[in-house]
Amino acid sequence: MAAIGVDGVTVLGVLGEANRMGERERETVVRSAVEVARGRMSVIVGVSHPGTRATIELGAMADALGADALMVAPSAEPVPSEARVAEYFGRVCAGVSLPVVLQDHPASTGVHMSVPTIARIVADNPGIACVKAEAVPSAAKIEALSAALARPVPMLTGLGALYGQFDLEKGSSGYNTGFAFPEVLQAHLAAWRSGNRALARRIWAHFLPLIVFEQQPGVAVRKEILRRRGLIASAAVRHPGAGLGAGSAAQLTDLLEFTMPGVDIGRPVDVAAIVGA
Amino acid sequence: MAAIGVDGVTVLGVLGEANRMGERERETVVRSAVEVARGRMSVIVGVSHPGTRATIELGAMADALGADALMVAPSAEPVPSEARVAEYFGRVCAGVSLPVVLQDHPASTGVHMSVPTIARIVADNPGIACVKAEAVPSAAKIEALSAALARPVPMLTGLGALYGQFDLEKGSSGYNTGFAFPEVLQAHLAAWRSGNRALARRIWAHFLPLIVFEQQPGVAVRKEILRRRGLIASAAVRHPGAGLGAGSAAQLTDLLEFTMPGVDIGRPVDVAAIVGA
Amino acid sequence: MAAIGVDGVTVLGVLGEANRMGERERETVVRSAVEVARGRMSVIVGVSHPGTRATIELGAMADALGADALMVAPSAEPVPSEARVAEYFGRVCAGVSLPVVLQDHPASTGVHMSVPTIARIVADNPGIACVKAEAVPSAAKIEALSAALARPVPMLTGLGALYGQFDLEKGSSGYNTGFAFPEVLQAHLAAWRSGNRALARRIWAHFLPLIVFEQQPGVAVRKEILRRRGLIASAAVRHPGAGLGAGSAAQLTDLLEFTMPGVDIGRPVDVAAIVGA
Amino acid sequence: MAAIGVDGVTVLGVLGEANRMGERERETVVRSAVEVARGRMSVIVGVSHPGTRATIELGAMADALGADALMVAPSAEPVPSEARVAEYFGRVCAGVSLPVVLQDHPASTGVHMSVPTIARIVADNPGIACVKAEAVPSAAKIEALSAALARPVPMLTGLGALYGQFDLEKGSSGYNTGFAFPEVLQAHLAAWRSGNRALARRIWAHFLPLIVFEQQPGVAVRKEILRRRGLIASAAVRHPGAGLGAGSAAQLTDLLEFTMPGVDIGRPVDVAAIVGA
Repeated sequence: MAAIGVDGVTVLGVLGEANRMGERERETVVRSAVEVARGRMSVIVGVSHPGTRATIELGAMADALGADALMVAPSAEPVPSEARVAEYFGRVCAGVSLPVVLQDHPASTGVHMSVPTIARIVADNPGIACVKAEAVPSAAKIEALSAALARPVPMLTGLGALYGQFDLEKGSSGYNTGFAFPEVLQAHLAAWRSGNRALARRIWAHFLPLIVFEQQPGVAVRKEILRRRGLIASAAVRHPGAGLGAGSAAQLTDLLEFTMPGVDIGRPVDVAAIVGA
Repeated sequence: MAAIGVDGVTVLGVLGEANRMGERERETVVRSAVEVARGRMSVIVGVSHPGTRATIELGAMADALGADALMVAPSAEPVPSEARVAEYFGRVCAGVSLPVVLQDHPASTGVHMSVPTIARIVADNPGIACVKAEAVPSAAKIEALSAALARPVPMLTGLGALYGQFDLEKGSSGYNTGFAFPEVLQAHLAAWRSGNRALARRIWAHFLPLIVFEQQPGVAVRKEILRRRGLIASAAVRHPGAGLGAGSAAQLTDLLEFTMPGVDIGRPVDVAAIVGA
Repeated sequence: MAAIGVDGVTVLGVLGEANRMGERERETVVRSAVEVARGRMSVIVGVSHPGTRATIELGAMADALGADALMVAPSAEPVPSEARVAEYFGRVCAGVSLPVVLQDHPASTGVHMSVPTIARIVADNPGIACVKAEAVPSAAKIEALSAALARPVPMLTGLGALYGQFDLEKGSSGYNTGFAFPEVLQAHLAAWRSGNRALARRIWAHFLPLIVFEQQPGVAVRKEILRRRGLIASAAVRHPGAGLGAGSAAQLTDLLEFTMPGVDIGRPVDVAAIVGA
Repeated sequence: MAAIGVDGVTVLGVLGEANRMGERERETVVRSAVEVARGRMSVIVGVSHPGTRATIELGAMADALGADALMVAPSAEPVPSEARVAEYFGRVCAGVSLPVVLQDHPASTGVHMSVPTIARIVADNPGIACVKAEAVPSAAKIEALSAALARPVPMLTGLGALYGQFDLEKGSSGYNTGFAFPEVLQAHLAAWRSGNRALARRIWAHFLPLIVFEQQPGVAVRKEILRRRGLIASAAVRHPGAGLGAGSAAQLTDLLEFTMPGVDIGRPVDVAAIVGA
């Protein structure tokens, strides 16, 4: 990530394997990330927890370990209440020193935050530095939030980049999501920002089959690609998560060859060359 | 549909607007479909109902109206039981005369059917003519079912074609899903069946941005495309379903132009020409 | 029901077997209820439907068949929205002539309505005649609604009477729920209204073991009691609903004997005598 | 608990506030419980975790701190699989030294385990010492499990004692659940075991209004009772959990007076005297 010049990374997000780790192991992940990143890119740490105080404590831990920002999503309660969710963010923001990424991802949290609720949370808490917009349809929600936010904050694209192009069109500031070829997302964003919209579309469309394949439930595909890229030593998925079957691994091989014929994925890929720009 | 020569159509499926119609209106839909289709293509009718007897009655209604097959998915019960689900299919198959498409779509039903359960239902009920495989990851499930079914039945691809290419690779027999350009799915399938796998991949990949856009929650995008194609007079979505905002409609315009520049979508599109084959 | 002098009955509610019936059979239920009730008690008909227009059509059908009121609950949508729920009630109330019971039962609908949302719906729609308060904790919600409603409407107790005493203490106007001994609920309410709070508590507490037993998931216990009371000929539960096992039937026998030793349940029971009042 | 002679206590169960605590605070809870309990009663520690290895690590931690047993429930996965759940218990049992309470509580876990699956897990893993039967209808499931288990293990009653009497009738060995008057559950069980079934029923029925009130969502009622009993200093509920409103607190006062008029709840209550035995 540092080698390709990303702005930052998020560790302990919801769709990796953070939920299968104990707290000590999570601390090891944060420590490693900070150590490697220091001076080159920001490290955002996921600290969502069903307890408000525990969220704050995890935030303090991340802070002490050198993190640059926190990612926080609300937890489902027996009796849902948007007012309580707003309270949760208020207390967390008051209790931590680092800037907070408000994550809106109902598919994993079971919590639906309306546009007015998010707008109110952002207005009331200067500590909210950013919204990670993962409530489908995400582009429409980004558009609605853009109109509703009294204080503009960046809105970032997640969901494995599945709606990346559509989100950018409606005001997303960039990516904050898992995809095993982050240089593709970088190139997509760069093309978009440079005003070359046709190229941006071409890049995203070209890699979309891989994006679709990778965003299937579980993290097995992503880990296998990272392994093939030489970035991790093992693609083993933590139990009881499902690993990648032989059939799916063979599909991945075909798909990579279709998407990037003859390309050495062991190094950053040349996106422009691949899409023929 | 008849004009482009599809094998059949499904009406009253789960992700259209059947759930917003009363039974009399549903009968009108079936009657219209049968009348138009007669002699040119099969009509499959969705008849899933939380009551076993009511499912059978809806099946008899569809049969009386001239349908060719039924599509049936199980309903969630307070205490889930795969044995009870098997019983449900057993009774339904015994109670209807038409062949049955077993629909496996946990995202809408909340019912997860294991591979052994589906295999047992297919083995025990000759009336099951087909499985609509919509449990993610669908390609892996199709692969597992292929190995597990004692009696081979076609497995069809749904989920708005999102995983169409991957499903075909693992044994899907074709499409049974909503997409506003069915000629694309036809061309994809034809290329695959002819052994031209490279072309098949190209077709699917080319249209994937549109597939992704259209499969977002709700039916608003699909209806709007059908309207623009001149196939329906109004894209109004039945309340309380969400309609298409102006922003999303503009995105659709851009996306169609990106996918099929200059193409008249008012008639069947020339897929080979579009993908440059 | 008429013989014991209840004010009204609800047919086609959510926790009976309405969801297993087709529309024609539902009409038969309404027709029968109206015919039997005419002149002696009101008939409320459940007409909730995922489609707004279909809800209105079911309401018109109930009206045409002679019903006195409608019971309406919202349906879950892919993207939850309290504003849309309010719209739903607005359109339904505008489209029907009969008074409407707003049913707040998240356990079956998956829709959580906040107190301000319900207050707004009641304020905006004179057709809302009553709220059936089935969101736990129900007594606290009734208390909050009482304070929030600009226009007071009766609030009725459901959930199989599980929280009946607590609801009355906070402002419930009475029962609108399934329990196989409605005379007990009548007696409870009468004692409460007469100001004899000690007696009211005694009645409710005395029958609470039976209330708890009967409110378990499914309708099998209730049907079996009604059968034993001679009120229905068969306790068969519609498939795929679960029937009552032999073990549970034996428990029921013991429980009835414990609750009402020696009492003939084939006729209205003498609640005062049973609780020793 | 020790003073009234219970066999054991469970800490960090699912319906308390364990889910709002960080791991270090959870360790403090375990340490305190073990220290206080030592030599007088067993301490069971809830160690369920979405990661199999993390569950084992939490189990090792509890073991090192002196716990006597572990309570383990499975976690919901994107693609549910009873085979995977069985694997989870297999690995956990192989990885820990302490006996394991298998907790079957779908309302909190979202995981439904069929009777054959539980029977297989118990058969395959000698480390499973007990089943906590919290899948409704619990009495019927206990009855079915009793018939299906090749190796008999105790089955314990949870769910706040709501179905306590019914569970005992079908084979429950006793209570393992939260209720602010554990001496009542003791007395109930003792009466049942002594063969005095009439007394057992009377005890349970007498306290059922309180059981129903206390088992409402959240832990606020229980904490308030414990505070009034002088067992905890504060009834504050950890945010974002809901606290007890003034209205509900007043209801509790009335309910306690109705259930135990004039009784000093600051000490163990005399259950026999209260029910007039």
